[in-house]
Amino acid sequence: MKSAAGSSAALREEPDGRPLPPGWRSYTSPEGRRYYVNSCSKETTWRRPSSSAESPQRPLARQSSSPYVNGSHSSTKSCQPTEAADVALRKPSINKQPPGSVSPAKRQIKEVKETKITINCVTFPLPGEGPEQQLLKPNEWSYCDYFWTDKKDPQGTTSVAGFEVLLQKQLKGKQMQKEMSEFIHERIKIEEEYAKNLSKLSLSPLAAQEEGTLGEAWTQLKKSLHDEAEVHLKFSNKLHTEVEKPLLTFRGDNFKKDLKKYDHHIADLRKQLASRYASVEKARKALADRQKDLEVKTQQLEIKLSNKTEEDIKKARRKSTQAGDDLMRCVDLYNQTQCKWFEEMVTTSMELEKLEVERIEWIQQHLRQYTTLRHETDMFNQSTVEPVDQLLQNLDPAKDRELWVKENYTGEVRPVDMDI
Amino acid sequence: MKSAAGSSAALREEPDGRPLPPGWRSYTSPEGRRYYVNSCSKETTWRRPSSSAESPQRPLARQSSSPYVNGSHSSTKSCQPTEAADVALRKPSINKQPPGSVSPAKRQIKEVKETKITINCVTFPLPGEGPEQQLLKPNEWSYCDYFWTDKKDPQGTTSVAGFEVLLQKQLKGKQMQKEMSEFIHERIKIEEEYAKNLSKLSLSPLAAQEEGTLGEAWTQLKKSLHDEAEVHLKFSNKLHTEVEKPLLTFRGDNFKKDLKKYDHHIADLRKQLASRYASVEKARKALADRQKDLEVKTQQLEIKLSNKTEEDIKKARRKSTQAGDDLMRCVDLYNQTQCKWFEEMVTTSMELEKLEVERIEWIQQHLRQYTTLRHETDMFNQSTVEPVDQLLQNLDPAKDRELWVKENYTGEVRPVDMDI
Repeated sequence: MKSAAGSSAALREEPDGRPLPPGWRSYTSPEGRRYYVNSCSKETTWRRPSSSAESPQRPLARQSSSPYVNGSHSSTKSCQPTEAADVALRKPSINKQPPGSVSPAKRQIKEVKETKITINCVTFPLPGEGPEQQLLKPNEWSYCDYFWTDKKDPQGTTSVAGFEVLLQKQLKGKQMQKEMSEFIHERIKIEEEYAKNLSKLSLSPLAAQEEGTLGEAWTQLKKSLHDEAEVHLKFSNKLHTEVEKPLLTFRGDNFKKDLKKYDHHIADLRKQLASRYASVEKARKALADRQKDLEVKTQQLEIKLSNKTEEDIKKARRKSTQAGDDLMRCVDLYNQTQCKWFEEMVTTSMELEKLEVERIEWIQQHLRQYTTLRHETDMFNQSTVEPVDQLLQNLDPAKDRELWVKENYTGEVRPVDMDI
Repeated sequence: MKSAAGSSAALREEPDGRPLPPGWRSYTSPEGRRYYVNSCSKETTWRRPSSSAESPQRPLARQSSSPYVNGSHSSTKSCQPTEAADVALRKPSINKQPPGSVSPAKRQIKEVKETKITINCVTFPLPGEGPEQQLLKPNEWSYCDYFWTDKKDPQGTTSVAGFEVLLQKQLKGKQMQKEMSEFIHERIKIEEEYAKNLSKLSLSPLAAQEEGTLGEAWTQLKKSLHDEAEVHLKFSNKLHTEVEKPLLTFRGDNFKKDLKKYDHHIADLRKQLASRYASVEKARKALADRQKDLEVKTQQLEIKLSNKTEEDIKKARRKSTQAGDDLMRCVDLYNQTQCKWFEEMVTTSMELEKLEVERIEWIQQHLRQYTTLRHETDMFNQSTVEPVDQLLQNLDPAKDRELWVKENYTGEVRPVDMDI
């Protein structure tokens, strides 16, 4: 019973461009959230111990007379959740024993080669063991391919789930977006101040008495400052509505709530996985005890035959089989939960990935709007000077003299000599 | 003896584009000042009364036995400087007498038609009298053609010389030029403030943690603010050196000193004119007395003939002729001064006219520089956004995910089912 999570096939493309692995399908929940479901979560439901015990998909089960022995061996070596790392370190030393010096007892262990390791209650294939895993989305650097392991935090004390790293990225992105809108807000304030000063200066009475065509040009030059002010005011207004606001309001408070939901959902599955892993351990212990008891009783039978003992052995074997069935059920329940967690991880990380792409494209769109507005501003600004250029070109000192003389002349009759 | 000031011929063109009236020439003084000199100022020098008395240029002199009578008449009627206006008003009533009712005494007066009027010691032809005056510089509205009369100031109390009006225009022009440079200075301060704010914002740490290609674009966007700041700073610096300073320093304090010099020079000539006019009046009075004395003596002779009386008449006639000569000399001195004043008026007003043209062209040149700098600023400004546009175009969410995943991934080995 092998989960498709380990499948080596690349994901097939979905209508929305997302690939899926063979044996997977996606459905959208009533709340509109898309789920990626692995067929395993259906198959792994516990039915009949015997059938599942003899399943050809279990190579290890076929290597020994009693499936439980190997099962217990292979498990106990790699399943102390707390000291998982230690176990991983101890294993090599065991395997590195020179072939010659191997006792019959240990030989059995060696036959049962370690192929998997469970870390923080999650079970991984050991390096080089099991079928090769190909990425679910090769060449995409997809979130769903790179955050399966928990990582030790900088202090190395507690370990952080890979999913937490993804959530942190989202929160940081949200913060960046907020800071960008604050930056634009600062720019807006600068533009408003600049516009205010220009428009104030444009009303200054300086050189207002200049006359004629020069006076006109000068008046237009002052007016052009008012026009400039208007351009910068329009710029700041558009910055506010078309850049600052969209950046600020994109993904309101709901966003962080949603992230928390994802966080809790995944964390709950991890807790469930831990408790089910604990049950597995308990069942292994019980099975081991039962097997010991059966061995003892079998040795007693070899010494003196009696009906009483025959009965005891039958009883012990029944109890041992019962304990085996318990263990199998616990392992299946564990695998179901891990499978569910796996599905949620894929589903949610793909969603976070989509959110990040959207964020980047949203910001890109609005920063482009910013540069567009800047270009417009510079263009409109230029046009404010053109009427001044015009009037400066048509400026005419002779005309100005004529206008002024017409207004101020005192008399054009020239003096003549006095007669006697 | 007619001054070319009243010449009806338009001015001839000079090398420097200034026309001169016939009989005029210009020379440049050691201090480089150009003078316009009227031949009259040479011709009017007093030589021989008889010759000048019989000069054919004096139609009035030929209408009566004694030139002085008419001379005195024509003058006294129109030469009370203070009540010049009144005289001008009285004249018509005199001329409007019906021909029939004219006494022999008055006839003589009527024959001597008024042709000139002296106002504030300056002598003008009466409207419609004397040869028609054409403008010295027709169609040019030249200062030298329109400021010959003194004008009553707004309160109508004192009268202001036409030349003062020209000086006021110059002072106002200087003030306008100064205010324009102050205006530009204000603009410079606004640009500096704007640049300061932009450059400060460009250093803000906001969204500095943004990563990948988006991070690059954002960093460039912030940098572009620093570039913008540079553009506006360069603008303000060039405004200072290429517009504000030239407008401020054009024509230093010397300019106002020069205007004062012109002012005093012309005013002194007006004072001299006034004193020479007073001498003329005095001489007229003396001549009138002498003529009266001569008449009395002549009547005595008609009654009883005696050597004694013959002698007295000879003596009286000599004195009368002497008084006539005095008057002619005074009138000639007066005309010389008026001519000099006229020349100075033409010379200086043409100079002021030239100064005004220079001022307007200087301002035009530097306001054009202002608009050129504005255009440059807008152009450079646009270029500051282009690198941002580039990076926003190349922005790539997939690439950003790759970079981030490569740095932050926790593990790509996917979980597999646990075995029993």
